[in-house]
Amino acid sequence: MLINTITGKKDLIEYLRGKSASFLLSLSNTKTANIEGITQAGIPGLIYLTPTLDSEFVCTGEVRSLENIAETPKGVPTPALITRAIHLLKPYSNIEVLNLGLEIKPKVDYFKLNDFDINPSNQIDLGAQIDAMGVFQKGLEFGKNYETKDDYIILAESVPSGTTTAAATALALGYDCKDLFSSSFKTVPNSIRTQTINKALENIDSKDELFDILGKISDNMLIFNAGFILGLNNKKPLILAGGTQMACVLLIVNKILEIMGGEFDTSRLALCTTKWVYEDKNSDIKALLEMLDFEINSYYADFDFSLSSHPALKLYDEGEAKEGVGAGGCLVYGLLNGLSKQQITNQVESFLG
Amino acid sequence: MLINTITGKKDLIEYLRGKSASFLLSLSNTKTANIEGITQAGIPGLIYLTPTLDSEFVCTGEVRSLENIAETPKGVPTPALITRAIHLLKPYSNIEVLNLGLEIKPKVDYFKLNDFDINPSNQIDLGAQIDAMGVFQKGLEFGKNYETKDDYIILAESVPSGTTTAAATALALGYDCKDLFSSSFKTVPNSIRTQTINKALENIDSKDELFDILGKISDNMLIFNAGFILGLNNKKPLILAGGTQMACVLLIVNKILEIMGGEFDTSRLALCTTKWVYEDKNSDIKALLEMLDFEINSYYADFDFSLSSHPALKLYDEGEAKEGVGAGGCLVYGLLNGLSKQQITNQVESFLG
Repeated sequence: MLINTITGKKDLIEYLRGKSASFLLSLSNTKTANIEGITQAGIPGLIYLTPTLDSEFVCTGEVRSLENIAETPKGVPTPALITRAIHLLKPYSNIEVLNLGLEIKPKVDYFKLNDFDINPSNQIDLGAQIDAMGVFQKGLEFGKNYETKDDYIILAESVPSGTTTAAATALALGYDCKDLFSSSFKTVPNSIRTQTINKALENIDSKDELFDILGKISDNMLIFNAGFILGLNNKKPLILAGGTQMACVLLIVNKILEIMGGEFDTSRLALCTTKWVYEDKNSDIKALLEMLDFEINSYYADFDFSLSSHPALKLYDEGEAKEGVGAGGCLVYGLLNGLSKQQITNQVESFLG
Repeated sequence: MLINTITGKKDLIEYLRGKSASFLLSLSNTKTANIEGITQAGIPGLIYLTPTLDSEFVCTGEVRSLENIAETPKGVPTPALITRAIHLLKPYSNIEVLNLGLEIKPKVDYFKLNDFDINPSNQIDLGAQIDAMGVFQKGLEFGKNYETKDDYIILAESVPSGTTTAAATALALGYDCKDLFSSSFKTVPNSIRTQTINKALENIDSKDELFDILGKISDNMLIFNAGFILGLNNKKPLILAGGTQMACVLLIVNKILEIMGGEFDTSRLALCTTKWVYEDKNSDIKALLEMLDFEINSYYADFDFSLSSHPALKLYDEGEAKEGVGAGGCLVYGLLNGLSKQQITNQVESFLG
């Protein structure tokens, strides 16, 4: 099992082999997830709980704000299972949770819960109503001040319907990226999704500036993490653990740099995702990353569930659920620390019984 | 599979069990390797590339300065395969490369490439022309200033024809060590090797002092690492990962201490090598180490390729190629961290296809 390069060179990821990592999980709710049929990242009617449950499970192995592990209607279990499996086999040295506007706070003691006094954002078709500049500044400050004794940082996210807000955001920023964004579905619910995005785009005014646009159409995670990356400013290696949503974070960074100017060193920045995202026929992570004006190293973990016969896990290989809760970056971290496909598969299976 | 003691006690190596290590790879070219038939550590005509390719492969899994992995004429693959296999299974926390006079610098980003402004040395039969005191001082300074947050250091080397320069050096320093030095061959090419060593010894003048002798007959790696050991001065545990060449480094340290006097604490210094070196009928690592006036802990990894049927790997068990690129020390590190003979064998085999 290997780590494959999407863009850039393999040297950065090889350099991180054997090194210790802090795992930061950024969580946010957008009411966009309440639109019926737009996401399968959670339990119908309780989708808003998914990031809360994901973080509880990654930290403690338990979902405390609900009885069962978040499952999609088709029974695809959350990718948090992968993130937790890696943590059991080769623990991250530190886990921190970033509350970027949760409906329900995770019930976890001891782990650092960074609170930023950010509210869940609105449905984007009705205008997200985010104080985008404020959220961005909070991300920037957090990045500037962030310190860890670990060798690098893995930044993950859990935001239900986040691929929809990401696609809308990139389109609103003028990127020619229709059909390049992923979804939690195999067969993307294009009618609902497209309608939502189109309605959201109609809210954008030609006089709107960057942060006006973001405030109307984005989500807190996207905006905050763009700030975090710029604030961190290459002082530690940073792995963006995610798929097209993390690519959208980079597209926002790119747009900010385009408008504000200035040099930005990305030599220690990478995006790491899953094979399911990389091979997804309905999206194109590579094309998204190639829209950036700066160089970016990106990789995917050559991991799938071909060693498993568990029906819920086979759904991953069939294209239902592909990424989230840092699964791709965590798989890369696991591979960089000697874990095998068999070990990871067994560990994930052990959660399902 | 065990770690066996050659000299000293097992306590030091047991103390290092489970601890983290920095891997330092010291690389050097001596034009002695250009003498036809003197070494099989590389591709004929391109032997000088071996240390460069070894370091590229250990760091990245790729040989970048040439298309194929360095193989000897008989098809014995470089011991860098073992070093890399361990790194994949149980990564060293940090890899640094020491350029002690390379013809071609390795093409690797991010990894620390320590450069010392040292030139490749000449054929020893024509006089090596090394500024031995200068190289020694550089090693001493590097050791004095070297810092790592890891628990110990593994110091390895890749120097084609390095066993010849090591044998010549030890003889020139007055050690009674004819026939104690190893070679990359099973059947040592004694005529060429002996002729080269004898011609080199003829260049030594009875008035030559220690560093004059080293400058004529040694190689940069031997001299630099003698300085490094003395400069490090026991502040961190240090594993010399190598066979008779690393033993020669210790013989040089021994001679320096004999001449310059002073106490030297070797309680946290060990040499770790392979079973192939330990059992070699044409050399005697134990006898070399017993010539030292200080106590030294030394060990070998009880690893061979008996679990493999790959013809290239069986050559190791037949005595062709025995050590290099830190293979023995890395095997010990792997064993100290729970790796099995089967895991290591499988991983090495995976490189050969």
